[in-house]
Amino acid sequence: MKPNLIATRFLGAETVAAMIARKGIAPCIAGLADYIRDDFRRWASFDKSARVATHSPHGVIELMPVSDRALYAFKYVNGHPGNHRFGLSTVMAFGVLAEVETGLPLLVSELTLTTALRTAAMSAVAAAALARPDSRRMALIGNGAQSEFQALAFHHLLGITQFHLYDTDAAATAKLLANLGRLGLSARAFGSTREAVCGCDIVATLTADKSRAAILTPDMIEPGMHINGVGGDCPGKTELHPEVLRRARVFVEYEPQTRVEGDIQQLPADFPVTELWRVLAGAVAGRRAADEVTVFDSVGFALEDFSALRNMRDLAEELGIDASIPLIPELPDPKNLFGYIPVLPGLARAA
Amino acid sequence: MKPNLIATRFLGAETVAAMIARKGIAPCIAGLADYIRDDFRRWASFDKSARVATHSPHGVIELMPVSDRALYAFKYVNGHPGNHRFGLSTVMAFGVLAEVETGLPLLVSELTLTTALRTAAMSAVAAAALARPDSRRMALIGNGAQSEFQALAFHHLLGITQFHLYDTDAAATAKLLANLGRLGLSARAFGSTREAVCGCDIVATLTADKSRAAILTPDMIEPGMHINGVGGDCPGKTELHPEVLRRARVFVEYEPQTRVEGDIQQLPADFPVTELWRVLAGAVAGRRAADEVTVFDSVGFALEDFSALRNMRDLAEELGIDASIPLIPELPDPKNLFGYIPVLPGLARAA
Repeated sequence: MKPNLIATRFLGAETVAAMIARKGIAPCIAGLADYIRDDFRRWASFDKSARVATHSPHGVIELMPVSDRALYAFKYVNGHPGNHRFGLSTVMAFGVLAEVETGLPLLVSELTLTTALRTAAMSAVAAAALARPDSRRMALIGNGAQSEFQALAFHHLLGITQFHLYDTDAAATAKLLANLGRLGLSARAFGSTREAVCGCDIVATLTADKSRAAILTPDMIEPGMHINGVGGDCPGKTELHPEVLRRARVFVEYEPQTRVEGDIQQLPADFPVTELWRVLAGAVAGRRAADEVTVFDSVGFALEDFSALRNMRDLAEELGIDASIPLIPELPDPKNLFGYIPVLPGLARAA
Repeated sequence: MKPNLIATRFLGAETVAAMIARKGIAPCIAGLADYIRDDFRRWASFDKSARVATHSPHGVIELMPVSDRALYAFKYVNGHPGNHRFGLSTVMAFGVLAEVETGLPLLVSELTLTTALRTAAMSAVAAAALARPDSRRMALIGNGAQSEFQALAFHHLLGITQFHLYDTDAAATAKLLANLGRLGLSARAFGSTREAVCGCDIVATLTADKSRAAILTPDMIEPGMHINGVGGDCPGKTELHPEVLRRARVFVEYEPQTRVEGDIQQLPADFPVTELWRVLAGAVAGRRAADEVTVFDSVGFALEDFSALRNMRDLAEELGIDASIPLIPELPDPKNLFGYIPVLPGLARAA
């Protein structure tokens, strides 16, 4: 490939893994949290829409576009709970950042790893506004691909020092326990959700099953808990008993999307929720009392990927990574697209 | 990059140009026409939706998803009429083909060149069903990036031997005249749309201006003409005087999308139109009389890109092209995404 002015920057999975390793995971998550907070605070600047989901018997494929006046971003992401049968991840993703003024794609990036980081960063941004400041103990219910990132985010950004683990798959818990041990983080496996949750300040539900589940029931909830509901994120896929939601103050990313995809899909359309950006922008109070129960009914919103793509672009710049792919033809005369094909003369013979 | 089972096939702009040159443009367009016809005939197999458009003062960026039970495709495409100021094409595009069962992206491909070919192929597929079989003379109104491809498609697939050219930009016409000359195709430049259209069997409007234009007025239309309206393809962007539409039988790709984006946006929502797939599937007659005026109000539908991506994947296979990009991380244990980042041990120090 010859270098050209309109080459699209490319960040592959291995490159992003190496970038994260060089920068450090915790600084990466902290950086992402800053970008997310900045973008959520200028919420009104964005052209937002609910994502476009294509459902099949095996899972869902989604496109998530969002833009401001300067940049357009979208993410492609799937959710296929049975993918382990093929040795594939449940969630795989990539995304694009483009220039609004011209439509030129500036960046194509892997987003499987990046989504894991941005989801953890988003959870931490919400919990920093909603959980009790003295929170030290956190339950991780669901010990799959997202769990280490949550632990790191909450350790480094919120000061969580003790993790309680539970998963229906004991091998997943063993993997998480080993990874956290090597990270120097204190963790303990429990035999049930109820036992893991007991005494925790923050509970994160990170399950992937595409079903109406009630991982958390009202009797498990303690005064002052903050619940970070991450796994309930599409129609028919929930984690929290409706009564848990009714007894809490519920915060969401983008209300029109969460009404359809979040745990609040189980409740009437007028059940009161607060969009988190209002708290981050200082318009609404987050936690109001030490014994209040708060829920962040997180489904993952396009703006978080917009922030993540901006962050990855800037990090690539900072680390001097300049790989690109020739996605768009560079034309001496844009009206002569035909001239880009090296066939003249003699083309008529090709027929 | 090390080879892996889940590498995503990549077809860049230069690669696709070289593939087209090797195969020959006319055989490429003919192949695309076959794939489009096959997919349109199994119309009911597809999960279809109108595209998701993000409008800005300078243009539009669109995502166009479509899927059947096996494959999911989407195209990213912009339309920015002022892009020549930056030396960029008005329309730039790329697309992705993915597996419905797992969500794994199989192919990322440039679609700027490919869209030009598929648009020409789609026009030819429509005209083969709608134009008079004895058509020999065609007007090309708008001599920009799409025009050579239209000429080649209509020469090779419909037997058009004489092209009449007009564009408000004389340089564009000169470029087209030169390219067609080198292709051995007979063409002549005219001083106005009216003169170019006179005596033609088929008229293609291929203009890019984002405005309500009336390139063709009723007095220019002759009995038996087929009009191929390609340039009017988004809200506020039309090419045909409404009276031209009223006096013709109008065919469209996907009615819900064309009502918003096509030339028929100027007419009431109950103005009768026929979806082209019905003609291709043999359910409805195309042209019914030699003096009937037919219009294909083409806006470009996601299914054409689905066909084009399938076709390009198969052509790459045929030509032995196996370039790929590492878009998705390959994980020994899909639940251990964290283990993909080469940071352990010592990660805690990074904070």
